[in-house]
Amino acid sequence: MNGQSLIGGAGDAPHSPLWTDPFGNRAGEAARRGFGRLSLALAYGPEEQELEEDTAMEDTPTIVKGEHGENQVAPCRGKLPKALSYITGDMKEFANWLKDKPVILQFIDWVLRGLSQVVFVSNPISGILILVGLLVQNPWLTLTGCLATMVSTLTALLLRQDRSAIAAGLHGYNATLVGILMAVFSDKGDYYWWLLFPIVIVSMTCPIFSSALNSVFCKWDLPVLTLPFNMALSLFLAATGHYNPFFPVKSFPPVTSIPVVTWSELNALELLKSVPVGVGQIYGCDNPWTGGIFLCAILLSSPLMCLHAAIGSFLGIAAGFSLSAPFEKIYAGLWGFNSSLACIAIGGMFMALTWQTHLLALACALFTAYLGIGMVHVMAVVGLPACTWPFCLATTLFLLMTTKNPNIYRMPLSNVTYPEQNRIVYLEVKKKTVESPFQEQHSSGVMVLS
Amino acid sequence: MNGQSLIGGAGDAPHSPLWTDPFGNRAGEAARRGFGRLSLALAYGPEEQELEEDTAMEDTPTIVKGEHGENQVAPCRGKLPKALSYITGDMKEFANWLKDKPVILQFIDWVLRGLSQVVFVSNPISGILILVGLLVQNPWLTLTGCLATMVSTLTALLLRQDRSAIAAGLHGYNATLVGILMAVFSDKGDYYWWLLFPIVIVSMTCPIFSSALNSVFCKWDLPVLTLPFNMALSLFLAATGHYNPFFPVKSFPPVTSIPVVTWSELNALELLKSVPVGVGQIYGCDNPWTGGIFLCAILLSSPLMCLHAAIGSFLGIAAGFSLSAPFEKIYAGLWGFNSSLACIAIGGMFMALTWQTHLLALACALFTAYLGIGMVHVMAVVGLPACTWPFCLATTLFLLMTTKNPNIYRMPLSNVTYPEQNRIVYLEVKKKTVESPFQEQHSSGVMVLS
Amino acid sequence: MNGQSLIGGAGDAPHSPLWTDPFGNRAGEAARRGFGRLSLALAYGPEEQELEEDTAMEDTPTIVKGEHGENQVAPCRGKLPKALSYITGDMKEFANWLKDKPVILQFIDWVLRGLSQVVFVSNPISGILILVGLLVQNPWLTLTGCLATMVSTLTALLLRQDRSAIAAGLHGYNATLVGILMAVFSDKGDYYWWLLFPIVIVSMTCPIFSSALNSVFCKWDLPVLTLPFNMALSLFLAATGHYNPFFPVKSFPPVTSIPVVTWSELNALELLKSVPVGVGQIYGCDNPWTGGIFLCAILLSSPLMCLHAAIGSFLGIAAGFSLSAPFEKIYAGLWGFNSSLACIAIGGMFMALTWQTHLLALACALFTAYLGIGMVHVMAVVGLPACTWPFCLATTLFLLMTTKNPNIYRMPLSNVTYPEQNRIVYLEVKKKTVESPFQEQHSSGVMVLS
Repeated sequence: MNGQSLIGGAGDAPHSPLWTDPFGNRAGEAARRGFGRLSLALAYGPEEQELEEDTAMEDTPTIVKGEHGENQVAPCRGKLPKALSYITGDMKEFANWLKDKPVILQFIDWVLRGLSQVVFVSNPISGILILVGLLVQNPWLTLTGCLATMVSTLTALLLRQDRSAIAAGLHGYNATLVGILMAVFSDKGDYYWWLLFPIVIVSMTCPIFSSALNSVFCKWDLPVLTLPFNMALSLFLAATGHYNPFFPVKSFPPVTSIPVVTWSELNALELLKSVPVGVGQIYGCDNPWTGGIFLCAILLSSPLMCLHAAIGSFLGIAAGFSLSAPFEKIYAGLWGFNSSLACIAIGGMFMALTWQTHLLALACALFTAYLGIGMVHVMAVVGLPACTWPFCLATTLFLLMTTKNPNIYRMPLSNVTYPEQNRIVYLEVKKKTVESPFQEQHSSGVMVLS
Repeated sequence: MNGQSLIGGAGDAPHSPLWTDPFGNRAGEAARRGFGRLSLALAYGPEEQELEEDTAMEDTPTIVKGEHGENQVAPCRGKLPKALSYITGDMKEFANWLKDKPVILQFIDWVLRGLSQVVFVSNPISGILILVGLLVQNPWLTLTGCLATMVSTLTALLLRQDRSAIAAGLHGYNATLVGILMAVFSDKGDYYWWLLFPIVIVSMTCPIFSSALNSVFCKWDLPVLTLPFNMALSLFLAATGHYNPFFPVKSFPPVTSIPVVTWSELNALELLKSVPVGVGQIYGCDNPWTGGIFLCAILLSSPLMCLHAAIGSFLGIAAGFSLSAPFEKIYAGLWGFNSSLACIAIGGMFMALTWQTHLLALACALFTAYLGIGMVHVMAVVGLPACTWPFCLATTLFLLMTTKNPNIYRMPLSNVTYPEQNRIVYLEVKKKTVESPFQEQHSSGVMVLS
Repeated sequence: MNGQSLIGGAGDAPHSPLWTDPFGNRAGEAARRGFGRLSLALAYGPEEQELEEDTAMEDTPTIVKGEHGENQVAPCRGKLPKALSYITGDMKEFANWLKDKPVILQFIDWVLRGLSQVVFVSNPISGILILVGLLVQNPWLTLTGCLATMVSTLTALLLRQDRSAIAAGLHGYNATLVGILMAVFSDKGDYYWWLLFPIVIVSMTCPIFSSALNSVFCKWDLPVLTLPFNMALSLFLAATGHYNPFFPVKSFPPVTSIPVVTWSELNALELLKSVPVGVGQIYGCDNPWTGGIFLCAILLSSPLMCLHAAIGSFLGIAAGFSLSAPFEKIYAGLWGFNSSLACIAIGGMFMALTWQTHLLALACALFTAYLGIGMVHVMAVVGLPACTWPFCLATTLFLLMTTKNPNIYRMPLSNVTYPEQNRIVYLEVKKKTVESPFQEQHSSGVMVLS
């Protein structure tokens, strides 16, 4: 779910003159950027998931400076990096290339992008990787997830929603989660085919929720995140409940006694696995391999995002220990997924990545974990799971925060793409501001389009 | 509750030049419109309640085209239709005629309009019919409802709220529901006279809730619907609760076991009755005759509204069966009233009636029913009934949705009157847009006053 | 918590030309105003807490007229009143004098103002009095409260929040309450030193909540009140809960039977004490002496505020009796604190004090008490206390209400100081409006900065 406004996305938004110049030659530039990302991917790829914050801190500025440097130098490149540049980032060139191809191919692109937009990625190849990850977990979930994504995208077309938003997968990702999680929470087990009816119905409400929420949130230039999914799923779970004769859902009992936690039983291997499992739980998957594949899918689009996903999951686990959470909950990744999403969102996605926003992302990840367990407790009383409500609320809170610190820069929603690109945009704005100081007020603090 | 903004209603709103011309001669036009409505009422009156969607679909365009045609032709009429034109619609001529009459007569007009505004009708004769319906149900409820409406209207006068809003009954309808439902939910039975004290107090808060909500909602040009009633009643029920020594209220236990539903016991007659009962439950009445009288009251003002009320109630029942709801709940109309209101609101009241918005109204009615049972489950945990929260939330959601489809046109709140008239306004705007294409952006999608 | 906008407070806000003239000579005027306040304090000081509404009503206009009169006459004064003028009100002169002093002194000033901002007072001497009151209650609470206030103020500095807001204590008061109430609600008793860790963490979130809420509320020119405290504390209580092994909190069981209330056991002395106890409960203190000291702290800054604090607490008690609340709850001040805060907020703080707003303040105090018990019942189901949610919601509701009555004037947030000064501003605006009638629309009804 990249933050692009649902109405009038990047494609047709009236760009302010501030932005137009530096990206006049977007395609060529993307190729150059691709190499920067690739070299990073090659260098850090395997250890990415276990990277400690310190390392992250040291490397981040180097990476991005390198990319920014290339911006000016425009060096010649080999063929391999250029080819790779086409499959990383948001694959804008591929989307452009598809425009005069059969509509069915475009539709597949939209659905695949929808699958990956759950983790803020708009990249069909990441979408395929995520599909593979889901198949590793459970084919039934893959089926329901894909069906829901397709139905939701079609509904958005029917309701004549913004084309560029549909093409970026922004009308698919909420339904992806709806489809998977409705199957996960069903009390009738896998392959209960009647469930496809409510899945189709609930998926159709996702574009309505997205559009309505966007009407409200656009006043603050906020993204809708996974709120449409949370609303639609919570509605379905509340409407049916544990005692419905047709579509019973699992019960989520509240805590009524002090959990027994034996610290000596802590298992290092399980703990290590719980980082990718936490990432997998974003899609409701508890298989560590699935989580690993998801991390690779994110890595392909943006190494910075992958890094923050892993850090977020790790911080969620740390928060769990600080409140003495039962180990099985931590091992199952239930403390990780909200924090992981929040860490990505603040750490480069909706705010330009700097030292300051990186620290803010860590704070937001911890905050999300605590909010998460709070909401689990409260919502269990009414028999509901917390879904990704904590991520949505915490991220919205941090995005709404204003500050006079010029290094904490919230991206205007129409310019949000992926962390590496966002940072380039931010640096350009900063440079412009330094050159023409009378425009200073535009860059100090968060720039909210009113 | 017609959608007119509480501050600066139709009377004193600065009309955009777009709107002024076609209605320069409002009074004469109203007379002509009256005939169109009458002929419709005569033709469809009796079967209206059981009309299927298909029929509705075929006739609607004809009706309105006819009305629109009359706009140009201005034919001479007989006396009867002209007389009838004065008692249908929103009876604007009567309100104007009353302006120099004793204030007590005006006040009675305001209170009667308040009674009918619950179902979006601003018509004192509909108000009298509703009064009759309430008397058929229970004189005690009639008393509390009228008392509350009067108190609320007086409070609004005292707080110097907008006069035109008060005169349209917009400061009465929430209190009508408060008065009736507080009596219905009281655990002390009928004629517990002490209850009049809290009814008066709670009624006095309604204009405050209305005014405050309107301050927030006006940013999105949204109507407050029955949210003030829901807030005030929920507050009273939460504050007293089932265990209050003075004002105990009924208990609303959550579902804790699978309900036994024997499909062979389904009773066709009961099912047929549950459509008008669902309409009656808008006012908390479970007598089918009362529901029928309410439908007649709506029919008098606007046949299109009456049609949507019946369809909405029917769709709510259908939604109930799809989730295997206990039959007694369905027979009692508890699945119908929210859907009925939502169907009226979207199907012509706050959106101009077209094929597309009619389908949207059906979708909204179904959505409302599912949201309704979800909220019943969740709110039962804290011991509260769902009131008409589901209707308010679902309708607000659908009104907030934006689209590029020019046939889904949300009425600017200051131009909302009743479906037939709304459609005339919409067709005028559409014609103007076609004539002067440079204004096109004004009519595409929803026009939100910022 | 005075209502000053968190971003761009009174200090740096671009004043509209309407406001600039009358306060060209602020320092000298403040001295004159000081005397007016003093004479009032001397005259009404001791009986203030038991003053009936009638008296208040008769005196209020005189007082303020007196002050307004002085505005023109500029008489010579004795030394004592001048000296007293420096320690009453918001002590602006002291804050200005501190500006070139060591930063540690300034920081102490900010923290002390933070302590007093809980009751809308920005006055370091009131802060010292409140510190004394807290010490009378319990040194442990004083420690946690001060620590939290300091941490929160430092975090706000770190996050580069608006300096003038920090200097007014607006980034301290929420954390003050967080620190005290987290200690009060801890199930491990006093001096459980591990609790300082979560207190520090939760305090650090307060400026984030404040800033984010302010971004939303500034669209309606609303103050954030104690919402950040409520959110932060509710989050902590929900996240830990009664069954947490590390930080268990008290349980808040819902009502499950009719309470036994023997009216003959009503104790007049206890009832009298419950007025100051209600004020004390704003800070979570149940010692009547502490409550009395708090009233004195408010009196020092603004006698009108002190009066409304006492009246509000009294009305809360009255509301308790009207619903047959158990006496021990009333004696413990649990019915008073929300009403007390609400009465201050509406009665002079965020609305200019007139007869009409005074009556509105009484209505709001009663409304808050009923909302309070409603929220206690609902939130007990999910195991949470109501904190000051009722005050925040009720006050926001009343502030959002609009009216055509020119005597109900909501202060623009950037001009909010304290009731006496607010009224002077209001009278100036009113005079200007009468002189230049073409500006009339600016002063009729509530002036909301869009």
